[in-house]
Amino acid sequence: MTYCVGMLLDAGMVFLSDSRTNAGVDHISTFRKTFVFEQSGERVLVLMTSGNLAVTQAMVSMLKSRLNAGDDIESLYNVPDMFAAARHVGDTLRAVHQRDAEGLAAFSIEFNASIILGGQIKGEPPRLFTVYAAGNFIEATTETTYFQIGESKYGKPIIDRTITRKTAMDDAVKCALISMDSTIKSNLSVGLPLDLVCVHTDQYTVALHQSIDASNPYFAALRQRWGDSLRHAFDELPKPDWLTGV
Amino acid sequence: MTYCVGMLLDAGMVFLSDSRTNAGVDHISTFRKTFVFEQSGERVLVLMTSGNLAVTQAMVSMLKSRLNAGDDIESLYNVPDMFAAARHVGDTLRAVHQRDAEGLAAFSIEFNASIILGGQIKGEPPRLFTVYAAGNFIEATTETTYFQIGESKYGKPIIDRTITRKTAMDDAVKCALISMDSTIKSNLSVGLPLDLVCVHTDQYTVALHQSIDASNPYFAALRQRWGDSLRHAFDELPKPDWLTGV
Repeated sequence: MTYCVGMLLDAGMVFLSDSRTNAGVDHISTFRKTFVFEQSGERVLVLMTSGNLAVTQAMVSMLKSRLNAGDDIESLYNVPDMFAAARHVGDTLRAVHQRDAEGLAAFSIEFNASIILGGQIKGEPPRLFTVYAAGNFIEATTETTYFQIGESKYGKPIIDRTITRKTAMDDAVKCALISMDSTIKSNLSVGLPLDLVCVHTDQYTVALHQSIDASNPYFAALRQRWGDSLRHAFDELPKPDWLTGV
Repeated sequence: MTYCVGMLLDAGMVFLSDSRTNAGVDHISTFRKTFVFEQSGERVLVLMTSGNLAVTQAMVSMLKSRLNAGDDIESLYNVPDMFAAARHVGDTLRAVHQRDAEGLAAFSIEFNASIILGGQIKGEPPRLFTVYAAGNFIEATTETTYFQIGESKYGKPIIDRTITRKTAMDDAVKCALISMDSTIKSNLSVGLPLDLVCVHTDQYTVALHQSIDASNPYFAALRQRWGDSLRHAFDELPKPDWLTGV
């Protein structure tokens, strides 16, 4: 399983992914799910993947192989805008599907992939997409602050309660880490280390790309203190003493 | 969709269910999902249902029709213990399956049901079960404090952080209501009113069976204050100022 969240704020974008993949609970590995495509000063794109690892790795390999194949070959380095980038990612996923779906189906393996794609190309504001296995995609609108892929439910309530487009980048990072912690606590197949990427609006470069593991003191303290805070908040709430009989 | 949670504590049992069912978002209704079977002073059983409403209603109707059909007919009023009660519920579900599964399959409708069954029959301690569509079931052990059915993920983290077997009944009610609030906030197909049932250990009767709707002042205050507390706890956590570049 996987959990990835991408947030689109006025100030920029925050991307956080775990790195655990599993093919059954006895076959657990660490694979990076976050990929950065950057031409500093002109464009920066961040891609996070979930689903069948063979599918998403094939897609990323194809995306990478086209990057420097010349101006005639469409790639994430020469698409004119983020909409075209999302279409390029979707088309690449469709090419993988065309090659592999039948082979997978013969073994009853689902062709299963979801991609978060965010970034900014000079000439337009930052944009955030979710691309589906079918190659179709949706874009975050002004009302939408974030997309999740993978095991999204455990970590959703805290995002819904704290994040808007106006949220500062550091608060968004804090929220993404808490959301990830809730997910890791509830789903064994989501695990450390994490990949954190931050991009500021109109800077066309990655401001930060950091790996966070169990030895990261901030994340360790956040997990502990968030748990303590929740229990404290719970204790402070009034008891249902109006319930006669309890 | 549905969300139900049943908690087994040293002090007793807490059951909470929503009441929304839907057959598509344009066909939403209110149906009770909690059923109490009580012979005061001797046994009390509480059953909560999720899944296909036609399936679970048929099961409940069959369970009820057997209650007073005579001592020769097995029913929830004469099974000797909770294990036999769980087996009786599972058998009844299998009877529904035998009658209806083929008819449903002809319309590609899944035979889909999950049941939480908890209670106490004189001679043994309170016991809590989850019964599956196949009629098999699992029982909560000393390490297990609760079972959920339906849309369980949004409301799971708060239970994991606050509830043990030693938790007092009123705290468990508070926790169940917060867990339900998180679920309602994130899934439109889970909705008010709620059914809350509390049973004290060794009392063999329902201590409380209350309907909670939006006008319930405690639940309204709890929702508001829990949201405020979460945001406050979030604000109080240290910012990731160690992240250079953010």
